[in-house]
Amino acid sequence: MIADTPAPPYYAVIFSNIRTEIEEGYAATSLEMLRLAETQKGYLGHESVREQLGITISYWESLDAIRNWKQQTDHLLAQRMGQKKWYSAYKTRICLVERDYGFEK
Amino acid sequence: MIADTPAPPYYAVIFSNIRTEIEEGYAATSLEMLRLAETQKGYLGHESVREQLGITISYWESLDAIRNWKQQTDHLLAQRMGQKKWYSAYKTRICLVERDYGFEK
Repeated sequence: MIADTPAPPYYAVIFSNIRTEIEEGYAATSLEMLRLAETQKGYLGHESVREQLGITISYWESLDAIRNWKQQTDHLLAQRMGQKKWYSAYKTRICLVERDYGFEK
Repeated sequence: MIADTPAPPYYAVIFSNIRTEIEEGYAATSLEMLRLAETQKGYLGHESVREQLGITISYWESLDAIRNWKQQTDHLLAQRMGQKKWYSAYKTRICLVERDYGFEK
């Protein structure tokens, strides 16, 4: 649930998004993209939650790893379908995680 | 819904959390903390979503603004109550947002 990331520094991609009402292909492609991301070099983990607003954060070792993932062929296709069909708005933020701390009962 | 942040660089605090079953005081304090954060110097916006996992991201102008917010008196009290009662686990990540891009229909 909470991604088990290594000690900083590492990178986070925050993908904040609002869906359209079009369901066709969305769930299957989302799942496929998460599975595919997991196989990418430099992938560290992800966290994903949706109410009206959806937030998916993926964690990466480097900017290179993020660039490679953004340019991955199936992912490019999914991004195009995302703009065309599934999202009415989104914002992607590329972040350097400088520090983290946590708590567990 | 999607925070209307200025051009990077700016900071993001990703707060990923799992709740306990204790509801007492949680909703009121959460709302109070969001309202209070909005009055802090350097606050830029926030996004918050919960399923089982909760993700709240607040955006800030600088590390100083984040430090001041972390040390704010009522917020310190809420953090203590959070560990004692409301959260079974959380992770906070302090991030420099280096780049962002978006899409809107």
